[in-house]
Amino acid sequence: MAGRIARAERAGTTRESILAAAERLFAEHGVFAVSNRQVSEAAGQGNNAAVGYHFGTKADLVRAIVRRHTERTERLRLRMLAEIGDSSDVRDWLACLVRPSAEHLAALGDLTWYGRFGAQVMTDPVLREIMVEESLTSPALHRVLDGLNRCLPDLPAEVRAERGDMARQLMVHMYAERERALAEGTPTPRSNWHDAATGLIDALVGLWLAPVTPCP
Amino acid sequence: MAGRIARAERAGTTRESILAAAERLFAEHGVFAVSNRQVSEAAGQGNNAAVGYHFGTKADLVRAIVRRHTERTERLRLRMLAEIGDSSDVRDWLACLVRPSAEHLAALGDLTWYGRFGAQVMTDPVLREIMVEESLTSPALHRVLDGLNRCLPDLPAEVRAERGDMARQLMVHMYAERERALAEGTPTPRSNWHDAATGLIDALVGLWLAPVTPCP
Repeated sequence: MAGRIARAERAGTTRESILAAAERLFAEHGVFAVSNRQVSEAAGQGNNAAVGYHFGTKADLVRAIVRRHTERTERLRLRMLAEIGDSSDVRDWLACLVRPSAEHLAALGDLTWYGRFGAQVMTDPVLREIMVEESLTSPALHRVLDGLNRCLPDLPAEVRAERGDMARQLMVHMYAERERALAEGTPTPRSNWHDAATGLIDALVGLWLAPVTPCP
Repeated sequence: MAGRIARAERAGTTRESILAAAERLFAEHGVFAVSNRQVSEAAGQGNNAAVGYHFGTKADLVRAIVRRHTERTERLRLRMLAEIGDSSDVRDWLACLVRPSAEHLAALGDLTWYGRFGAQVMTDPVLREIMVEESLTSPALHRVLDGLNRCLPDLPAEVRAERGDMARQLMVHMYAERERALAEGTPTPRSNWHDAATGLIDALVGLWLAPVTPCP
């Protein structure tokens, strides 16, 4: 019994170190440029097949990394939702959309990798489905999008759809770019994640409420 | 002499078919997932080392693809600049920023690959430098950014910088996503590239002119 618990704990630690090593290597060198063997080595696993044993394919590994982070942003988003109730201010809903990822990255410490990892996954023709599937299962995100829709002005369906896409693209790529600048020591427009999120919320309020040019 | 010209023409055709094959494979399968050997084969080259012979490394190949397209968008942008003169309307300058890529993609035909290719390059930690270097050498783009800056309201430098980043991200990723949807036969918010650009210009006008929340 004690032996079984010790084995389970050891497996948990191994999984954690593989996830951390994979996220870092993927962010810095690219998801496809890094082999499972390199991840196993960086995670300090003597056995080069450790990734396969614990996670399966590279897609499975990517999904496990995504899931580890979405669990935490989900909790942050639920807390913010409880605070704004049924607000009718577009800005409140955009804050619930944008702040949780920024807060999560801020809480992870000075150097993070998930922003760059996420941007690669969202841009890859195959891996992006994983991100989409995982975020579709987020009840908090659905509530945010419902709330936002309720207090937006009347917009043509196509404009609503494209502005939703734009908001998502900006969240993914602006945070990834900020993370990259921090890692490389190059300048970033804002000095912390909170202010970066504020800048993004300001811009998204303008984007969502912008007048629409009719297309014939 | 005639032999030398024939050889040069043959090399030009070979280069063209390699560039076209590489762009398509990179867009569909990912820049890092595709080998130079696969590109050579898809380009109908009996010699598997054709890519290396004609272009050098994968980074050189990526740069050649980028350059082939930026030459054409540069011409489209210069023509638009001549039309708007020294306009003081933010919208005119944003149109010069956003329309040339959309017009270029529209002119390439029903199925294109450069949008998805470009988004991957811009997100990759190493390859993005190629795109940045190539666009830095565009006089037309510099004139657009100068013109835009002249007619924007007074904004804090950090806000100006981050909104510039946002505009760039949206151009790259919204067009890539539209191209992907067309290739996969999934719905897109707009029925053509011109209207997609109009939607993006509307959104960017709102984004650039949005009120700024002061950060302490």
